[in-house]
Amino acid sequence: MMLNCDLGESYGAWNMPVDEQIMVHIDMANIACGFHGGDPLTLQKAIKLAIAHNVAIGAHPSYPDLVGFGRRSLAMADDELIACLHYQIAALDGMARAQGGEVEYIKPHGALYNDMMQKPALRRTVMQAIASCSVANVPLMIQAHPDHQQLSREAAEFGLVLLFEAFADRKYTPDGYLMPRREPGAVLNEEQAYEQATRLMDDGIIIASDYSVLHMPVDTLCVHGDSPGAVAMAESLRVALTKRKLTKVRPGINA
Amino acid sequence: MMLNCDLGESYGAWNMPVDEQIMVHIDMANIACGFHGGDPLTLQKAIKLAIAHNVAIGAHPSYPDLVGFGRRSLAMADDELIACLHYQIAALDGMARAQGGEVEYIKPHGALYNDMMQKPALRRTVMQAIASCSVANVPLMIQAHPDHQQLSREAAEFGLVLLFEAFADRKYTPDGYLMPRREPGAVLNEEQAYEQATRLMDDGIIIASDYSVLHMPVDTLCVHGDSPGAVAMAESLRVALTKRKLTKVRPGINA
Amino acid sequence: MMLNCDLGESYGAWNMPVDEQIMVHIDMANIACGFHGGDPLTLQKAIKLAIAHNVAIGAHPSYPDLVGFGRRSLAMADDELIACLHYQIAALDGMARAQGGEVEYIKPHGALYNDMMQKPALRRTVMQAIASCSVANVPLMIQAHPDHQQLSREAAEFGLVLLFEAFADRKYTPDGYLMPRREPGAVLNEEQAYEQATRLMDDGIIIASDYSVLHMPVDTLCVHGDSPGAVAMAESLRVALTKRKLTKVRPGINA
Amino acid sequence: MMLNCDLGESYGAWNMPVDEQIMVHIDMANIACGFHGGDPLTLQKAIKLAIAHNVAIGAHPSYPDLVGFGRRSLAMADDELIACLHYQIAALDGMARAQGGEVEYIKPHGALYNDMMQKPALRRTVMQAIASCSVANVPLMIQAHPDHQQLSREAAEFGLVLLFEAFADRKYTPDGYLMPRREPGAVLNEEQAYEQATRLMDDGIIIASDYSVLHMPVDTLCVHGDSPGAVAMAESLRVALTKRKLTKVRPGINA
Repeated sequence: MMLNCDLGESYGAWNMPVDEQIMVHIDMANIACGFHGGDPLTLQKAIKLAIAHNVAIGAHPSYPDLVGFGRRSLAMADDELIACLHYQIAALDGMARAQGGEVEYIKPHGALYNDMMQKPALRRTVMQAIASCSVANVPLMIQAHPDHQQLSREAAEFGLVLLFEAFADRKYTPDGYLMPRREPGAVLNEEQAYEQATRLMDDGIIIASDYSVLHMPVDTLCVHGDSPGAVAMAESLRVALTKRKLTKVRPGINA
Repeated sequence: MMLNCDLGESYGAWNMPVDEQIMVHIDMANIACGFHGGDPLTLQKAIKLAIAHNVAIGAHPSYPDLVGFGRRSLAMADDELIACLHYQIAALDGMARAQGGEVEYIKPHGALYNDMMQKPALRRTVMQAIASCSVANVPLMIQAHPDHQQLSREAAEFGLVLLFEAFADRKYTPDGYLMPRREPGAVLNEEQAYEQATRLMDDGIIIASDYSVLHMPVDTLCVHGDSPGAVAMAESLRVALTKRKLTKVRPGINA
Repeated sequence: MMLNCDLGESYGAWNMPVDEQIMVHIDMANIACGFHGGDPLTLQKAIKLAIAHNVAIGAHPSYPDLVGFGRRSLAMADDELIACLHYQIAALDGMARAQGGEVEYIKPHGALYNDMMQKPALRRTVMQAIASCSVANVPLMIQAHPDHQQLSREAAEFGLVLLFEAFADRKYTPDGYLMPRREPGAVLNEEQAYEQATRLMDDGIIIASDYSVLHMPVDTLCVHGDSPGAVAMAESLRVALTKRKLTKVRPGINA
Repeated sequence: MMLNCDLGESYGAWNMPVDEQIMVHIDMANIACGFHGGDPLTLQKAIKLAIAHNVAIGAHPSYPDLVGFGRRSLAMADDELIACLHYQIAALDGMARAQGGEVEYIKPHGALYNDMMQKPALRRTVMQAIASCSVANVPLMIQAHPDHQQLSREAAEFGLVLLFEAFADRKYTPDGYLMPRREPGAVLNEEQAYEQATRLMDDGIIIASDYSVLHMPVDTLCVHGDSPGAVAMAESLRVALTKRKLTKVRPGINA
């Protein structure tokens, strides 16, 4: 199980934490591609930092919505969305190659990520885009779910490999999705988050809001870089993974 | 001698002529990269069209200035400019690769092109950017000039090959630059342009505004895609080149 | 009955027809506000042209989506949308005042216009925004509909006056909306459009796709500025209105 | 003498300190207008905060350069610059009016402010823009300088009133400009800044880098909102002004 974090999301004079402190604890850096954040210089710095810390570089493409930070659904036509994804992935991959790295996986950002989970037709469009982009055989990171076999079947149609992602600090509904942030209890405190993460490591299960047990394969845990206790949480999870001999090594993402 | 043209400069609902008519006559398509024009879908269409017509794809990066169409000088820091160029070149190259093509040369756009000719320090920054971008050994297209040896020496420091570009329809000053558009006689009519172009093909010279003779090596002639007589002019120049057995073949740009 | 047209939608080097030819035939110019098109210089030119031709200036605000030309639904929060509308209306009104004019009505653009018709909660947010913007007592242009009384009741809650708009060149469905463009017969030819417009002038009715009769009050007809026959159609409609002594006068929009 | 501060410069998810803490100490809020920062919702919040604290609202327009935060010179044509300034000032003024306030002065931002001080032709264009914008008789804030009479003469040609601004925390050169930030000693520490500010209050002079004495009228001191000690410095200066009975009152900027 690997730790991933969203990074490279500053824009010009506005800083988001591309934190060297968190880079030492994570395995995978989801780096913005310029459409929701990430000017070219910011991307270059995040790429260099990831390479220096032996962290895998993932492209984190978005709807084109800078002022909305990619958090608002946008009704794009399929061909526009595919071209937008090709552009963003290509830009990040080429910038990574210029520094000696490369893009090793794709994780859609924000509203595109959520819409992809909720809308099967849009998910197919995203899968088609990734299967046809300039980075060969690149996996798609997607939300872990009890019905993972259906998701994997869809991906197989496009020849895609999936990486399943879970969230340590979010309460799950009985049907395997995240409880909306606005509902009470939706965001776990540090102790609860640590418990949810280690239960996943040890038993491969999540306890949902109604105490039912969700079984789902999980390849990677998301660590949020912008919350106050994020670095401490990342460090705790890194220690927990190391104890379980899931030590930090260069992930064989494409293997 | 090859014909090149700026293409892929539409943006969303706004069309610039990415003209299939002109694509049949040219050898090299300078395709916008999104910073002065060229949304992702437009780039994809221009790339497909170039590949279909066996036309070489060049990246045509710009200052980040959409509303100004990249025609206004912008005082960027060196590291910002380098990152901006890496981003744009990478985006276009990856989109081209997704369609089975690749970027074969770089031609800076608009104010960046002009500033590069006028300011040696900026020219060195551009050269450094191209030498360190993700496309290996990619030539830089630059304005042909009597003092071409100095330009070539500068490029050699960065291991760069230059492609020298001349303009058929513009009057030259005695010092080898273009007469500013606002001056009378700066833009040649079709007959004059054809004469200037064929003189270059036959004798390798341009007659300047004071009737002095400018000797300069020229690899490629620029055809403007957006002027009314552009297609006719491109066709005439193509015929003239063909008669001289400089027939349209896939250019060995990198050879 | 007045003729209105969308104008001021150029952006930088990209031209949309802000056509002096059409300005002579219309009563109301819906001028873009910069979020889907219309850089400041374009707005200024459209404003001057409208004032010169004694045409009423309307603000034509949009979702913030330049590359999508405001034609894609964007899931904005209510407070964001209100602030966006206040900003755009204020910008156009102040630019108009600098030229001796003023904004006299508001017509939402593109996807925002369509979403406003389809989604009552969004329509209330738009109404709230217009009722609280910097232009006092400014009417809202909205699509004419058989159920106009319900729309007027909603507007009255916000103290708003409505201007009902119909489309000459579009087929209507039996429930009073526009038939989607993708369906056969959705766009009328010139003869049909002229017939639909004059029937509205004479009898106040529209014949729907199933030949049922739709009664709806109509204050203004939309003329599309970017279609080839637009100027001729605007001229024909102007002549038809003049014959009916609905001659072109400065509309008392706020009266 | 009044205290002014740049505010309203957040953009979407990216926060710049629009600090309620500093608002209690200042007299004038220079609020961004959307072209270098300041999305509509951010502007609305800054306007509400200024009104709540009885702080005068100034428009802080910029070159259109979001990713560069308006800090890079951009070679705009005069008519483009004028239209850009009209648009920004109108947008902020209308948003302020929607909240019960209004724009009371104009302070150009960043590179536009610096270019305006260095280039007389550009300064005249800025003055022309402000004299012809939608806010009647609005003063222009400009850098205080020993040669203030020349600046005032220029402004008088356009019927403009100037507000002269000095910087507490920056060392001045003997010719009355700011020492560039990159030079040693260019930025004063808190003690030095306090001394420079109170000397201006008491004696109307600044001691330049070569210990020569600069006489210049100063209407307002700039407080930087984003430096760590900014709030403490603003509070100290407020206390110093109050002792001198230059107490915080609603400034009669236009009187």
